[in-house]
Amino acid sequence: MPKGLHGRWCALTNAAGRLSYRPMASNTFVLRGDFCYSETPASLVMREDGYLVCVEGVSRGVFPRLPDEYRALPLFDYRGKLVVPGLVDLHTHAPQFAFRGLGMDCGLMEWLSVHAFPEEAKYADTRYAENAYAQFVDDLVKGPNTRSVIFATVHRESVLLLMDMLEASGLVCMAGKVNMDRNAPDGLCEKDGEASLLQTRRWLAECAARHYNNTSPILTPRFVPSCTDGLLRGLGKLQKEFSLPLQSHLSENAGEIALVKELYPDASCYGGVYQRFGLFGENGRTVMAHCVWSGDEEIALLKKNSVFVAHCPQSNTNLASGIAPVRRYLEEGLAMGLGSDVAGGVHTSIFRAMQDAIAVSKLRQCLVAHHEKPLTIEEAFYLATKGGGAFFGNVGSFEAGYECDILVIDDANLAPRVSLPVKERLERAVYLSDGRHIAAKWARGVRCAIG
Amino acid sequence: MPKGLHGRWCALTNAAGRLSYRPMASNTFVLRGDFCYSETPASLVMREDGYLVCVEGVSRGVFPRLPDEYRALPLFDYRGKLVVPGLVDLHTHAPQFAFRGLGMDCGLMEWLSVHAFPEEAKYADTRYAENAYAQFVDDLVKGPNTRSVIFATVHRESVLLLMDMLEASGLVCMAGKVNMDRNAPDGLCEKDGEASLLQTRRWLAECAARHYNNTSPILTPRFVPSCTDGLLRGLGKLQKEFSLPLQSHLSENAGEIALVKELYPDASCYGGVYQRFGLFGENGRTVMAHCVWSGDEEIALLKKNSVFVAHCPQSNTNLASGIAPVRRYLEEGLAMGLGSDVAGGVHTSIFRAMQDAIAVSKLRQCLVAHHEKPLTIEEAFYLATKGGGAFFGNVGSFEAGYECDILVIDDANLAPRVSLPVKERLERAVYLSDGRHIAAKWARGVRCAIG
Repeated sequence: MPKGLHGRWCALTNAAGRLSYRPMASNTFVLRGDFCYSETPASLVMREDGYLVCVEGVSRGVFPRLPDEYRALPLFDYRGKLVVPGLVDLHTHAPQFAFRGLGMDCGLMEWLSVHAFPEEAKYADTRYAENAYAQFVDDLVKGPNTRSVIFATVHRESVLLLMDMLEASGLVCMAGKVNMDRNAPDGLCEKDGEASLLQTRRWLAECAARHYNNTSPILTPRFVPSCTDGLLRGLGKLQKEFSLPLQSHLSENAGEIALVKELYPDASCYGGVYQRFGLFGENGRTVMAHCVWSGDEEIALLKKNSVFVAHCPQSNTNLASGIAPVRRYLEEGLAMGLGSDVAGGVHTSIFRAMQDAIAVSKLRQCLVAHHEKPLTIEEAFYLATKGGGAFFGNVGSFEAGYECDILVIDDANLAPRVSLPVKERLERAVYLSDGRHIAAKWARGVRCAIG
Repeated sequence: MPKGLHGRWCALTNAAGRLSYRPMASNTFVLRGDFCYSETPASLVMREDGYLVCVEGVSRGVFPRLPDEYRALPLFDYRGKLVVPGLVDLHTHAPQFAFRGLGMDCGLMEWLSVHAFPEEAKYADTRYAENAYAQFVDDLVKGPNTRSVIFATVHRESVLLLMDMLEASGLVCMAGKVNMDRNAPDGLCEKDGEASLLQTRRWLAECAARHYNNTSPILTPRFVPSCTDGLLRGLGKLQKEFSLPLQSHLSENAGEIALVKELYPDASCYGGVYQRFGLFGENGRTVMAHCVWSGDEEIALLKKNSVFVAHCPQSNTNLASGIAPVRRYLEEGLAMGLGSDVAGGVHTSIFRAMQDAIAVSKLRQCLVAHHEKPLTIEEAFYLATKGGGAFFGNVGSFEAGYECDILVIDDANLAPRVSLPVKERLERAVYLSDGRHIAAKWARGVRCAIG
């Protein structure tokens, strides 16, 4: 311990093996438990009674015995509990949380006009937004996700309210003010592209002024049919200017795809329209929700431009969109993660998205693509953690160098059988756990309140 | 009040309108709340702030104002809470509860050999069975179902243990000692048909000696491939002799159907094999789980013989069996309800089966039968209550003459929007409620402990 210094310090070796003393931050600790995480889509790393070392929010790895150099760090002892990376939701709509579970027997168009659009229009009222968003954020806090990529609405002030709440939660989120200036109902349709872009610039400036640690803006054109050419072109420029990430919807269902074809008859595919305006990964990290009906050309474009696919199996089922060819996407090596797509999906938990991803892959094999092997639990877990986590950087694994998003699950009471291997405990947790089984969670090495 | 009589009495009119006094039983009461129940598959009856009158366990109807003649009855005041009939599970496997959530990425055959059969073999040990069945029953008690039709295992003593526990729970259940004397692994395969029938007769005598109120035996040949001709023939005779109900599996998936065809190449359909042995509704109430791939002839036979279909959408998805043509079954007027099929299904709650029934009907329309309209919430609710309830008699509705199975749901905190019509509250409860939202439940007018 260096003389003359106060407070808590710890000795740490740096990457070059050199010893140094640093003040002990609360995001520097050791966590003991039964670990499970992904390195590749095909394999799980399992380490019963291991030690995860988190230094300044970043993993140094999971060790069977605690290396001497970390013995001075504070220890969280979760022996016997299951420890996995926090789950990543690549696609969700915060303002749709309020009507989850309603209209699940409607078709997409009826559901949009009866439920989604009228609800989203209410977020012009910041008092309504504050109450509703608080409940959305509360649900995230109590669930297993630590990262989310979120659609808000067109309303700048409400979006900022949501972002303030997300920041306070300790979760790490990207949230977007939606852009839509055509084919949208009153109260949601912005005057024109210029007005929409102006609001977006103002919103970005307000975000910057807030100096968030964990919350960041993401450009959010709703989808091709609701944005004019001018708006799309302007968003492409914005993305380049500010190096911003971007999210939208792609090839979700037949009616939507036909509409895009009608609007852009000369485009070779739906994704090609985004590309035309520089919105398909050329100017920054990009995630497209759904990709249920992407054809060869669109898949090649997704791959070439490293665009992320947010696979949303529950929503694609509930809105009768179809079943995305996820086996092919994995084989092609596309960047991909899972999305809850609340409120097309009902549940925010990405454990539920894992269940549904496996389930619909089995129906796909059984009914439409007999040669496509269904997803394994390893693959679904990879998508829920490291696959989606890549959109945020080194996120979704406990390998050295990954940001420490940690979920501790007390799985002792999940089912009668008690002494199962870690992989089977993971499966059980995916299918049977809920918020009540979460013992603790951290995002970027900072402990989150879990309600 | 008649003179000279002690205790609590009440004045009631009988069906002929004649007034009489009767001692007040605990299964005679009034319940106030917001009601929702089915009369037909297409319509919901909704009665906000109504009064359900339950006399000796049987409904006299739901009234907008409490008729004078019932004013003396004890009142349970659940104003503002949602009140629906208890849910009915037409198909579940009690001994598979212990491994719910495991192997959900396996195919059926792997899942049976790695998980289902080895687990079922453990129920030869009554101590194992006692512990595992206690957890199954505890889960039922805490959930929304009030009726279940249950597969146990071949082991007579364990089945009786299960039935004792079910009887103590207050739920109303049929449970079956499984028969299987071929194509089954050691520890589950009975010696021969004669031995299996002998055990079954012994079990039936033991059931009779127990004088259960709510628990009754149901004949349970596992399915055609695991029973010899002699066993099937003997079970047909038993059903006739004792007027027993019967449950089995039918046309679940391609491999199973091919096996049946191989065993009975001259049978015109799978159901025809049951019929050959008098096991297809000719000798008593019969329910067949799945019916995913039933063809015209089998459907006609189901209809002619009033055989119930237990539609198990979660299991049919998880085990890659397919999606049953439920729209057609409704149009044909088949007797039908929902099944959890634990552990092919993961969740015992029939609310979850409702969600899945609607969800897979949408995928069916989208992927394989574009002309088939998906299920509505009304239809799914009908199947979960009155449709399946008919297997038990007048069960699953609050119409006059129906047995009072009642589920009270405290739905105030299910979502931000608070003042919704009763139908939307029902939808929300189906998708978002769990055991924590159940305020009370009754089966046959007797209140159940809910944990």
